[in-house]
Amino acid sequence: MEFRTNAFLDACRNEVPEHTPVWFMRQAGRALPEYRAIRGTGSILEAIAQPELVIEITAQPVRRYGVDAAVFYSDIMVPLWATGFGVDIKPGVGPVVEQPFRSADDLDRIRDLDAAVDTPFVIEAIKGLVAELDVPLIGFAGAPFTLASYLIEGGPSKNYAQTKALMHADPELWQRLTFKLADMSAASLRSQIENGCSAVQLFDSWAGSLSKRDYERFALPATQRVFDAISDTTVPRIHFGVGTGELLTSMASINADVIGVDWRVPLDEARRRVNGKAIQGNLDPAICLAPWDVVANEVDRVLAEGGGRGHIFNLGHGVLPEIDPDILTRVVERVHARTP
Amino acid sequence: MEFRTNAFLDACRNEVPEHTPVWFMRQAGRALPEYRAIRGTGSILEAIAQPELVIEITAQPVRRYGVDAAVFYSDIMVPLWATGFGVDIKPGVGPVVEQPFRSADDLDRIRDLDAAVDTPFVIEAIKGLVAELDVPLIGFAGAPFTLASYLIEGGPSKNYAQTKALMHADPELWQRLTFKLADMSAASLRSQIENGCSAVQLFDSWAGSLSKRDYERFALPATQRVFDAISDTTVPRIHFGVGTGELLTSMASINADVIGVDWRVPLDEARRRVNGKAIQGNLDPAICLAPWDVVANEVDRVLAEGGGRGHIFNLGHGVLPEIDPDILTRVVERVHARTP
Repeated sequence: MEFRTNAFLDACRNEVPEHTPVWFMRQAGRALPEYRAIRGTGSILEAIAQPELVIEITAQPVRRYGVDAAVFYSDIMVPLWATGFGVDIKPGVGPVVEQPFRSADDLDRIRDLDAAVDTPFVIEAIKGLVAELDVPLIGFAGAPFTLASYLIEGGPSKNYAQTKALMHADPELWQRLTFKLADMSAASLRSQIENGCSAVQLFDSWAGSLSKRDYERFALPATQRVFDAISDTTVPRIHFGVGTGELLTSMASINADVIGVDWRVPLDEARRRVNGKAIQGNLDPAICLAPWDVVANEVDRVLAEGGGRGHIFNLGHGVLPEIDPDILTRVVERVHARTP
Repeated sequence: MEFRTNAFLDACRNEVPEHTPVWFMRQAGRALPEYRAIRGTGSILEAIAQPELVIEITAQPVRRYGVDAAVFYSDIMVPLWATGFGVDIKPGVGPVVEQPFRSADDLDRIRDLDAAVDTPFVIEAIKGLVAELDVPLIGFAGAPFTLASYLIEGGPSKNYAQTKALMHADPELWQRLTFKLADMSAASLRSQIENGCSAVQLFDSWAGSLSKRDYERFALPATQRVFDAISDTTVPRIHFGVGTGELLTSMASINADVIGVDWRVPLDEARRRVNGKAIQGNLDPAICLAPWDVVANEVDRVLAEGGGRGHIFNLGHGVLPEIDPDILTRVVERVHARTP
């Protein structure tokens, strides 16, 4: 589906959209009873191989909430899993790696992604969604630092100690690793775009664990490589991380169109740090567990700080499973009711 | 023991010390073989009730590393545990609360702390340490927000969702809860000071999960109450949190003497944000897993950014159990070798 004019895409291009667009990270997920009804309890990796299921799960929040964009139901670890690195995604835990990345020998375990061969089910689901949806579909991939942290730590981490130790101890190996991951994420994004995604988001979820110095030295080059590799495409590119207050200016120096921001930095201040680029965010998802009048006030504040031009309303991180979906419906209505 | 002049205390008072002082958060702990040899595998709460063991564990890193201060071996949850809230500290997990805090009815479960009655073993250990040590002993307590997060979430948390929901949904109950916790922490700190601690640190470890707006509204007032309650004492007061880049100016507005900073903000920039107050930090503990030349470079950078006056060298967060203690010994030697 081609979108000549569309609030979400207009905001991504830093224009003033006809209304402030809104979608939610993890909008397809456990907060929705219709998701729980069909999803089962197994690993997301089982679900992902079933295009019909992925189409339904991806479309559910669009129908339910009336959001301005769908986000493809997948996981940043899918390309690594599909190319045989040995990854599982345990419900309630996150990605777990059987044999963590330890040395240069492990580089060979990271194969090039051939999306048509390795993830045909992804392509099938995207094509089906594009035919069905009347809103843009957002594709996504993991940023090299965040992907590498899972490979090295073997799973979710509190302090990314082994990851940081490796980058400092062996910067050359670190670069080879993150550049391989960059190429894999770029190949995945390219395939998602070619098959119909109208925008893409790169998740560097854990970049906020790095100092600005280490971010610029160890995370930025490979992230730049991802965005460079898809710079010939015309779809908007969103770049997101959590706890990135110190990193926003560095992140904005990379050629993405939109910078996603969590709730720690007000959007007017974030806009200054990203040198006026389009921004996405930044309602604290935990606020959505409070009564509606509290949520409404926070929505209004985010809208005021976002300022209308080039602002995509979103949460500062993913939807929490315990959020009442009716609250999110009301958030969407409230965002849409306010003209920039 | 009285310290007429002492590098650690001088730096706390924002003076130029004879050498840059250094200690490490969690310096008494699993990184030390001599700790593992005597500590066993049970909860820290079992160890804390044994003054002889606490004295030995607290003194070990002073002997081993030659740090400029000892930090009392305890946990921020000890006052709550000792007054019967129903807390355990599970090895490898952290504080776990049997019946989480849910409503105003639970306020009655938070008793006033009478340190002499509830924690006589703490007093005994502090007295023994003060008699034995030739460096200042740092006492500590938990800040109300961080303590409340454990009580409400029931354990360690990723997103503090229930905590934030409660503070926004019922600000009055939140204030009553955090003020009770403030009084408990203040009582604990007062007892530690009266029995010989030369300085105290308030850990608001998870304050960085809050926006500046929410920090000032929901965390600052109770933290201010803790420091106000001990403002008649003359010992230096350190105020620490993780991921507090956006909060440093707010934290510095409270009447503590020293602001602890993690590695995300360089110390020269941190000094600006805290309006010139004394600072503590901020080597990334994960760096200590890298080879020595990497660590040495980072130590030099931290010293340069710290600037000598009013700088206590420390890690940006606690010592990781997997750090080689010989690296920390060399860090101390290197810090001491550089005259401010």
